[in-house]
Amino acid sequence: MGEEQLKEMVFDMAKRAKIASKDLIILSSHTKNEVLKRVAQKLREKKEELKKINEKDVNQAIIQGHTKAFIDRLTLTDKIIEGMAKGLEEVAMLPDPVGEVVKMWKRPNGLWVGKMRIPLGVIAMIYESRPNVTIDAAGLCFKSGNAVILRGGKEALNSNVALGEIFRETLKEFNISEDVVQVVPTPDRKLMEYMLELEEYIDLVIPRGGEGLIRFVTEKARMPVIKHYKGVCHVYIDEEADIKKAKEIAINAKCQRPGVCNAMETLLVHKNIAEKILPSLGEEYKKFGVELRGCPETLKYIPWAKPATEEDWYAEYLDLILAIKVVEDIDSAIEHISKYGSNHTEAIVTENYSKAMKFLKEVDASVVLVNASTRFNDGGELGLGAEIGISTTKMHAYGPMGLEELTTTKFIVFGDGQIRT
Amino acid sequence: MGEEQLKEMVFDMAKRAKIASKDLIILSSHTKNEVLKRVAQKLREKKEELKKINEKDVNQAIIQGHTKAFIDRLTLTDKIIEGMAKGLEEVAMLPDPVGEVVKMWKRPNGLWVGKMRIPLGVIAMIYESRPNVTIDAAGLCFKSGNAVILRGGKEALNSNVALGEIFRETLKEFNISEDVVQVVPTPDRKLMEYMLELEEYIDLVIPRGGEGLIRFVTEKARMPVIKHYKGVCHVYIDEEADIKKAKEIAINAKCQRPGVCNAMETLLVHKNIAEKILPSLGEEYKKFGVELRGCPETLKYIPWAKPATEEDWYAEYLDLILAIKVVEDIDSAIEHISKYGSNHTEAIVTENYSKAMKFLKEVDASVVLVNASTRFNDGGELGLGAEIGISTTKMHAYGPMGLEELTTTKFIVFGDGQIRT
Repeated sequence: MGEEQLKEMVFDMAKRAKIASKDLIILSSHTKNEVLKRVAQKLREKKEELKKINEKDVNQAIIQGHTKAFIDRLTLTDKIIEGMAKGLEEVAMLPDPVGEVVKMWKRPNGLWVGKMRIPLGVIAMIYESRPNVTIDAAGLCFKSGNAVILRGGKEALNSNVALGEIFRETLKEFNISEDVVQVVPTPDRKLMEYMLELEEYIDLVIPRGGEGLIRFVTEKARMPVIKHYKGVCHVYIDEEADIKKAKEIAINAKCQRPGVCNAMETLLVHKNIAEKILPSLGEEYKKFGVELRGCPETLKYIPWAKPATEEDWYAEYLDLILAIKVVEDIDSAIEHISKYGSNHTEAIVTENYSKAMKFLKEVDASVVLVNASTRFNDGGELGLGAEIGISTTKMHAYGPMGLEELTTTKFIVFGDGQIRT
Repeated sequence: MGEEQLKEMVFDMAKRAKIASKDLIILSSHTKNEVLKRVAQKLREKKEELKKINEKDVNQAIIQGHTKAFIDRLTLTDKIIEGMAKGLEEVAMLPDPVGEVVKMWKRPNGLWVGKMRIPLGVIAMIYESRPNVTIDAAGLCFKSGNAVILRGGKEALNSNVALGEIFRETLKEFNISEDVVQVVPTPDRKLMEYMLELEEYIDLVIPRGGEGLIRFVTEKARMPVIKHYKGVCHVYIDEEADIKKAKEIAINAKCQRPGVCNAMETLLVHKNIAEKILPSLGEEYKKFGVELRGCPETLKYIPWAKPATEEDWYAEYLDLILAIKVVEDIDSAIEHISKYGSNHTEAIVTENYSKAMKFLKEVDASVVLVNASTRFNDGGELGLGAEIGISTTKMHAYGPMGLEELTTTKFIVFGDGQIRT
């Protein structure tokens, strides 16, 4: 396709999304939930068809020599299709944020002023080759009253279009504009670039994927971007930590699922508790097959650990590797986190009240925990329901983004003829 | 200055702002208020000095042939200096948003999860040649715990630097890093461009000024931008409006201060009430010297009005000019607003409950009012205290931005050894 054609195509998509989004504002929660449940049902009915279409993408990706992990993420199995369907049913059960009045107050002149939740409008999702994101994102955007333009990885194109079609068919059945859910039908990167210029039609872009993609989107986008680059999460074990809690949290944060953004990457240990905790904790990590990289002080207690280099403090391993540093005190711990952390998730283990409060107040991260694993930075675990991602952008939403974070508020004013003097 | 030097200079400023911003998080509300009151006092003490420095800017601007309105905005008079001082004292009296826990809930596993207000970090303000903005913005950013980089119009450079210096001196007296308030010391546009790339150090940019400047910032900035392009505000007089309220609101919204963004630009009138209201309302507008531009139907009732063209429906006159359109019903009114409005401020006048609620729910604007003047879209009038601007960006803050809107929330989690299974 020529550049002009691409430009026209994406402009047309964005414009139609904007128009369609206006109908969503007044859609009843009941109808939205019925749509979501019907899409779930259809996913189950069309399972075999979907798997067949997905096979085309998978075969192509194998020929192109993609890694096994990549192919795994691309493949639609029975389990993943069922997961998408269940996910939609769960979203249908969550409260509808649209229309909620979060606050209301009276002014001296008798005006009642409130803040009412409204959809953002049109959201563009840009993501890697994981077709399940197509349905998850469409479901969350739809429930929160937003139109969505889905631009997934090119390797999943056939699967994404097929999944989008199921959603669109259902919208049509309910007499809702299909333009509410649109899948970009071409993998052209130029199209994405044009899309990122359309700030008058697209209210928010959420990129999910590698750092390169996210930087590209951030640089090109004229509309707000909500993103997270990486999760370099720490657990700080204070000298007054409960040893049992400290060990359980340190193991859980690293080993329960090392490949995700809220897994711990660096363990900080107060010097006065290092001797008591590090040797046995080291043994436990060994059982889990964790490679340890320590500061010189750490190596005294865990001689088999590798020496850590400066790069290790910045590293997001996403793997069974852990950096360990012995620190002077809580201030050094907070300083280390401030320098090397990524504003994602930070935890302290301590029984000391003042230190717990100091850490909570002073550490700048989307989620800060006392005596709990970093793995709790997750929309479901924190009680927001399904999440569309975790934001380390401070504006608008900082932390896991659920339905509420896909809305904004407008001011509503109930008057009785008031004028300004 | 060479490009490399400019780049280095702004990088250094941003980096120092980021470091300084970390100290602000833990500053007590009391200290912050004392600083604000002390700056106010100093503004009064150094009044003559400030006026002398400002004279340089003003004389230069006169030589350059700027308009009288421009010179007025640039000039520091006794009244304006007193206004800045009073403004700071008012901000000192507003509640400190930092540290407020806006919500807290308990999870089934016993975790207590809360959302705590925290500063955004570093804010860049870009504004026209109005030196009072230097102090107003610095005060609001400081009280909300943010470091600020101020880049005002080049014609006000000497005044802005002098005002910034007063704030910085005071910070020093209180042992707070001066880097919390920095004034860009050169008007070079290239420097602004480099600044807009520094998303790792600057969390938010707020441009205030003409549409060209705002579009430039939106295009170049890699960090979030909160802006408003223009205010094309409507009042819709429904067929069931109270005539007295309708007239008062229609006059107030246009005439009380026509040069501001929340003034009405187009009046929509239901066809069934047009004959009853338009002739006498036209007479009233005539008394105020308002030029009217009407649709053909309007001209029947106000024959001396000029015929409106398509451009008039898009126009932000900021002047004693008003477009008037007679509409079929509330749906046509909402449609007109959706097409020509700017998501700023929209009002309905009606005694009909269902129509009032329909308008409130369906109209997409930062402030939607029933039976009240559009002029109430203002931080002070709505009860937020002083405002840094009005946002028509839907993300983060939609509407007037007070202290709260200069903060975000992080999740805080109180655990008791919880791990994820």
